[in-house]
This record gives sequence, C-alpha cells and structure tokens, in this order.
Amino acid sequence: MVTTGRRVGRPRAEQRPDSGLSAPEELLRAAAELFTTHGYAATTTRAVAERAGLRQATMYHYFGGKEDLLAALLESTVRPSLELARELLADQERSAEARLWELCRSDVELLCGGPHNLGGLYLLPEVRVDRFDGFHRVRAELKEAYGALLAATGAGAALASDEAALRTDLVFGLIEGVILVHRSDPERPVAAFAAATADAALRIVGAAGAAGGAGGPA
Amino acid sequence: MVTTGRRVGRPRAEQRPDSGLSAPEELLRAAAELFTTHGYAATTTRAVAERAGLRQATMYHYFGGKEDLLAALLESTVRPSLELARELLADQERSAEARLWELCRSDVELLCGGPHNLGGLYLLPEVRVDRFDGFHRVRAELKEAYGALLAATGAGAALASDEAALRTDLVFGLIEGVILVHRSDPERPVAAFAAATADAALRIVGAAGAAGGAGGPA
Repeated sequence: MVTTGRRVGRPRAEQRPDSGLSAPEELLRAAAELFTTHGYAATTTRAVAERAGLRQATMYHYFGGKEDLLAALLESTVRPSLELARELLADQERSAEARLWELCRSDVELLCGGPHNLGGLYLLPEVRVDRFDGFHRVRAELKEAYGALLAATGAGAALASDEAALRTDLVFGLIEGVILVHRSDPERPVAAFAAATADAALRIVGAAGAAGGAGGPA
Repeated sequence: MVTTGRRVGRPRAEQRPDSGLSAPEELLRAAAELFTTHGYAATTTRAVAERAGLRQATMYHYFGGKEDLLAALLESTVRPSLELARELLADQERSAEARLWELCRSDVELLCGGPHNLGGLYLLPEVRVDRFDGFHRVRAELKEAYGALLAATGAGAALASDEAALRTDLVFGLIEGVILVHRSDPERPVAAFAAATADAALRIVGAAGAAGGAGGPA
C-alpha cells in the first residue's frame, strides 16, 4: 500500500476506504462515479485519486492518465460480453436461439447492473477519438458475434445477408438502447428487464418462441 | 442584425455566414456542432457566438447561457415527435399499427437525420439535472403517446397493462438506441433504416404484419 503517513492533514488522499478492492479497481470505481456524475471533461485525475483514497502518483503508476481510465471503463462494458459470446458460439449443445437470448440477457445485465450507468460513457464525444480503438474493436467484435448467432437461428438463416446485418444492428441498438431506459428508471429490477429485452431481441430477429431452453418466455 | 462594423479585425465575431438562418437558429446550429464535437463541458458561450458569427451579447439576448442552448437543443429532439404523436393519436382513419409504425419511423428520422448526432446529448450527465425538466417532461409525454398507440394495437390490447408498459419501454429504448447505431455508421441512408426500425418496433409489440397501410413491409 501507498499510505506513508508522511503528509499529515490530508487524510482523504492517503487513506483508502476498507473496500477490499485493489488500487486499480478502486481507481476505476472512483473514475466511474466521477465521470458519470460530474462528467468526463469536468473530472481531474487528482479528483479521481482523492476519491479513491490514493495519491495521484499511485494513480499514474497504474494508469497513464484520464483517458486510460476511460478506456479501461469502456472496455469493461464490452469485454465480458465478448468472452461470453465466444463461449456461446462454441457451444454445440444449445440452440442458436437460446444462445442469442442468453447473450442479450447477459449483456443487458452488464450494461445496467453496475452502480453507475457506465454505458452512458459510450456517447461521450471523446469516445469517437481514435485513442479508444481498443474499445471500438472489442465492440465491433461483439457485434460480429451477435451477427453470427443471429445467422445461426432458423429465422436468421432464412434472411438475405443484408437483411440479417440490418437485424443485427437493430438487436445491437436495442441492447445498447437499454442504457437510456435504465437511466430513466434506475430502480427497475434488472434481471426481469434483461430477460424481457432478450425476448424483444428474438422478436426482432423473427425467432420469438424458438428459444425454448433459454429459461425465458421468449 | 448586429454587425456594427465597429470592431475591425474581428470579422468572425461580427459577420454571420450567409446561411439564411435567423440569429437564434444560427446559435443553435453552432451550439449543436460544438457540443457534439468538442463536448458540452469544453464549449464556452463565447465559442458558440463566434462559430455563429455573432457577438456574445447577441447570444445573451436570445439565450440565458449555455444551459439554455442545451435545453433548446434537447427539446428539439423530442418536440416534433410529440406533435406528430398527438396528431396520430387523434387520427381515427388509420389503424393503430400503421400510426405506431409512422411515429417510430418519423422519430428515427428526427434523431438520425440532422447534421449532428443531437440524440447524443441525451446521455450527458448534465441532462440529469432538474434544470432540463422541460425536456424530461416532453420526453415523458412522448413515451406516454407511444404507450397509448401501442395499447390501441390489436396485439397491445391483448397484453396485461404491466407487460404493455414494458413493451413501450422496449420500443422507446429501441428508437433511442438507434442514436448509437447511427453514430457507428453515419453514412447509412436514414430513410430505409428508419423504416426497418419501425418494422422492428412492431415486432417487439407483436404486431408485425398488421401495419398494412403504413407503407413499410412490417
């Protein structure tokens, strides 16, 4: 730990809360809170370090700066879904409908489940900048995985390839659109809403009712 | 007009481009451009006035400040759709399915059709503040109108009221979600995409194929 105790009188900058999180996790949590409440542009690295109960020098040990924090947060909104999507693509036992349903459900839980509306960071104008190409690449791979699962469904297989691509965009838009629905009604229980969104996604594909084993009333 | 010609050497602040727009329209266009490219927090009222080719004093004649500009832009993303929704609700001639389809199509065109991705302003953390309650109120009214049209469809009328409310949220999420789809692929022709999104919305409701007169292959 970095609490040297030398800088008496600035306890918030020295003491980390007893959260059980590692220093980088603590920093990301602080950045998530400040970026989504005060805004990205208005947040300084110093404020992030203070909120995390760490010195600014410690922050720079783990992250190159504010942009690195944002990049890491953005990737954390898509990488777990991409990993799940790869597992689901390799799964030969369940129907494509059930696997697509599960990907949608899980993705909504990821986007809406955290304490902060991290998905909201997607729309920051800063995110368009090339420096976040790690995030954009993972997001594009995730969308490809959605497309592959969609094309493997009975209804998806019957679509022309441009129509299948269009429906992939619409399903992806629906899933990311829940960020806005969630922000308007953050008290709504996420699990049921995630299942309902997955049902809606299968309806967009034209595969409603075919996800039998998925656990949801699609 | 405000070009007095007295402040020689600062032509950008004095000359308005020959755009045919009124001063407030010019200011809103400049604010839209700067807020969506440079970010809201990073944009000054001075920069907005300069971009519009107007003096800052002229800007303050029309708008109380940066927040007023953002409020006006936000309302411009929902008010035309609310007006259309009211007309559609009063329309006794067309089916509810056709009217819901038309509202979805038109709303997507509004959200994706401008030169700037104004919908992106929705997610600014600043928008949560009470001061934008005009926008939040109009947006809530628009969602209510979606719900009323949805409930008037054959499929919607058959749903329990909580399920109908959930599907309204999902349709609304899909429509607003296109903001993200559009940002990823701004070159996509909007008209066909708007129609495809309206088709998808009717599929979510369970009313696909019932919007016969709508002009779209729902």
